[in-house]
Amino acid sequence: MHTVMKCLTEPKLEKPVMVCGLPGIGSVAWLAVNHLQKELKAELFAELYSPAFSPKVWLTEEGLVRLMKGEFYFWKNTVRGSDLILFSANEQPYSPEGQYELANSVLDLAEKFQVRQVITMGGMATDNFTDHPKVFVGGTESDLVKEVETFGAVKLAGGSITGTNGLIFGLGKPKNIAAICLLAETPGYLSLDANAAKAAVEMFSKLLGIQVDYSTLEKQAKENSEAVHKARDLSRNNLPRDRDLSYVS
Amino acid sequence: MHTVMKCLTEPKLEKPVMVCGLPGIGSVAWLAVNHLQKELKAELFAELYSPAFSPKVWLTEEGLVRLMKGEFYFWKNTVRGSDLILFSANEQPYSPEGQYELANSVLDLAEKFQVRQVITMGGMATDNFTDHPKVFVGGTESDLVKEVETFGAVKLAGGSITGTNGLIFGLGKPKNIAAICLLAETPGYLSLDANAAKAAVEMFSKLLGIQVDYSTLEKQAKENSEAVHKARDLSRNNLPRDRDLSYVS
Amino acid sequence: MHTVMKCLTEPKLEKPVMVCGLPGIGSVAWLAVNHLQKELKAELFAELYSPAFSPKVWLTEEGLVRLMKGEFYFWKNTVRGSDLILFSANEQPYSPEGQYELANSVLDLAEKFQVRQVITMGGMATDNFTDHPKVFVGGTESDLVKEVETFGAVKLAGGSITGTNGLIFGLGKPKNIAAICLLAETPGYLSLDANAAKAAVEMFSKLLGIQVDYSTLEKQAKENSEAVHKARDLSRNNLPRDRDLSYVS
Amino acid sequence: MHTVMKCLTEPKLEKPVMVCGLPGIGSVAWLAVNHLQKELKAELFAELYSPAFSPKVWLTEEGLVRLMKGEFYFWKNTVRGSDLILFSANEQPYSPEGQYELANSVLDLAEKFQVRQVITMGGMATDNFTDHPKVFVGGTESDLVKEVETFGAVKLAGGSITGTNGLIFGLGKPKNIAAICLLAETPGYLSLDANAAKAAVEMFSKLLGIQVDYSTLEKQAKENSEAVHKARDLSRNNLPRDRDLSYVS
Repeated sequence: MHTVMKCLTEPKLEKPVMVCGLPGIGSVAWLAVNHLQKELKAELFAELYSPAFSPKVWLTEEGLVRLMKGEFYFWKNTVRGSDLILFSANEQPYSPEGQYELANSVLDLAEKFQVRQVITMGGMATDNFTDHPKVFVGGTESDLVKEVETFGAVKLAGGSITGTNGLIFGLGKPKNIAAICLLAETPGYLSLDANAAKAAVEMFSKLLGIQVDYSTLEKQAKENSEAVHKARDLSRNNLPRDRDLSYVS
Repeated sequence: MHTVMKCLTEPKLEKPVMVCGLPGIGSVAWLAVNHLQKELKAELFAELYSPAFSPKVWLTEEGLVRLMKGEFYFWKNTVRGSDLILFSANEQPYSPEGQYELANSVLDLAEKFQVRQVITMGGMATDNFTDHPKVFVGGTESDLVKEVETFGAVKLAGGSITGTNGLIFGLGKPKNIAAICLLAETPGYLSLDANAAKAAVEMFSKLLGIQVDYSTLEKQAKENSEAVHKARDLSRNNLPRDRDLSYVS
Repeated sequence: MHTVMKCLTEPKLEKPVMVCGLPGIGSVAWLAVNHLQKELKAELFAELYSPAFSPKVWLTEEGLVRLMKGEFYFWKNTVRGSDLILFSANEQPYSPEGQYELANSVLDLAEKFQVRQVITMGGMATDNFTDHPKVFVGGTESDLVKEVETFGAVKLAGGSITGTNGLIFGLGKPKNIAAICLLAETPGYLSLDANAAKAAVEMFSKLLGIQVDYSTLEKQAKENSEAVHKARDLSRNNLPRDRDLSYVS
Repeated sequence: MHTVMKCLTEPKLEKPVMVCGLPGIGSVAWLAVNHLQKELKAELFAELYSPAFSPKVWLTEEGLVRLMKGEFYFWKNTVRGSDLILFSANEQPYSPEGQYELANSVLDLAEKFQVRQVITMGGMATDNFTDHPKVFVGGTESDLVKEVETFGAVKLAGGSITGTNGLIFGLGKPKNIAAICLLAETPGYLSLDANAAKAAVEMFSKLLGIQVDYSTLEKQAKENSEAVHKARDLSRNNLPRDRDLSYVS
């Protein structure tokens, strides 16, 4: 079985920007793309099935079967600025070859739709719990990185990014697709870091001039923050500090 | 080497229903499909060889070599109702990609024969040893699930199914093949749960209106039941209870 | 990279018998085929390279590089009876898919040369050290098994054979190639059991009426036997006995 | 995703010699090819991307993304003697099949450019720290080995070479590409053995009559040597000695 791209509709998009976020550290990328999809009411138009995903299915509350899969949504920008393609999946492929395969398939679709830029997201694990996480940026070209720095992002100077979010970004280069990666600072111990996801989406919003409502992310971020501060009060010195930064996505 | 489908004959079937059951928990699915094949005297018409199976052969009492393989049987319904295709195999592929590959190959044959519905079976491990195991149902569409509920099945509301029995069911969706999965309740500690297999076959029988003799399954179920009750008498409190349900196939 | 079959010459053979023996338990099969190749002065005509072999090369005493590979030799029978193709390799592929791939490639060549029968060899681990090892036989058809039994072989009634020697034999069935497997009894603790190899070659010799000189195998077998008896004298009760037979190749 | 060869330019080369060195023991091969590329100011003309590499990207100090990849450089010899193609990569593929795949792809490019000889390099781990490491040689043909011996190399008489550097060399044989492997003696405990790399490059230089400046390698070698002698002074008897030679690349 090969990777299968199943197109449900064929949207007409004007040189769209593609935003990708697969589950990873703090679920930052997944939360960010999911939030965009819901807030913008983006529409599902293609599904990707792959033997690189786990060999299992899950069931909805209605007893309906769901495969592990990737989903592509589109959003037509009716005001000004870019149309969007959003991509996410239930999980990252478990094998290295599978991660390359998925990243390559996503960029095949990007080429088909003449995407003008790919933005992949991710979390960067630090031990710094903060209400204002930094956003780091890397890119396929210097101009792209510099542009994002003007919006307050910090250049990823060195380091590495493991996994599919990194590969989608990296494979853009030999395919001549302009791509950037936005990594939001996240403490490694949060499984769903809504605050980091919000920081990534805010950077996206500034870059593309697309307004997004943040209330659901803010609500979850507030709950996270309260839980962390409560845990800190209970056990003042238990959290590790000042470890070296390491890029993980 | 690729997966090889070797057709022995080309049966003419009228929009058949395909019933699949690979070895899994309690061997429920394998016992159920095997029972149907023997009781209905279904006829072997295709064999599937795959490098996804274990690299070994086994020998019959006559010294004849047998590969690990999948087998397709057909049954012409001479009374009323559906023709059948039955599928089983010696084992599930050991690799995730192999499981997808096998599930996909099985559905390719389903498409070739214009199967109107696929039913996969399986066991659902609970710690509840009972003479009347529940049968759970999930499906590719709500209508299918609701129909099976009217026959006494319990909707699979959430959870996941791991392995090829789940994938055959799940890959039905993107291939537009109507599919349901019937999971019969089985205590995790039985290796051949004939009673659960009987429950699955009974549900199949009600759904399709096909009469099946259960005496061989009942005989084995009775032996299982007596062995379990004996073990319970000997060691009253040794069996675990009340763990959360988890779907496994 | 795919499996590569490199043909050095194109021998004209008259419905040859193919004899296969890859390294396995006691190196029985490999010793047997190697012995045949040397004694009959069979000629190398094809090499098989595969990414399923270990990713390494070795060097001869002359500093010449050698890949892991399979080799096909042919022998023209100038007296009476069958021409031969002999196949062996440095090692068995390490992955299950690789074992199927190699077995399939070997049978592709068998089909190309219209081989009338495939004989795979192997060792069957028992704890019985004997000067007269039994030879067990399994086959794709009853007639073949019965024929070999008339020469003193013991029918393999049940059990399984793991690895490429078994798969070459087993894949003969769906490809409609008549095949038998000869397993010579070998104690599991010998790495090069020349006596078992001799027993396998003797059975081959009786079956095909081809005379073979055994002196080199006999010399090595004598050395093995003396070493084993010496070890037994030193430590009378250390060797395990009477374990169940298990087929391994 | 398959291995991708991306050609940036199409150099016209006159029966070039290809020199390959992937990271391995002591980084000898990688250092040697890297040194040649820098000193000769060889020009990048092709990149190789492969799912056989690690699924990660790294970032430059400028925040630019880089995939794991192989790189081909060419050098036009304006004086006399051979044009060169240099090949290296960030890493060796992690899977056996990936190592064969990469070696095969490299030789495909060699065939395309009608390379007259392939030279792969590597380290041979010994425990002998010396300022004058021996260089060992193996080849696809005796004449090649003998020629290199006249320049002071020691014949690799037996042993094996694991990994891609060995496979590029070994796969030359069935592809009828003349190839030699130069292994420079390196103590197993150095991660970047510039002195061994220098020895390998010197042998290359003698063979092809191409002058190379060694000052950067010598500088690093001197630092290594001082560090090792210092460590020895501190702990006289801690280094292992006189272990058997084993070829590793």
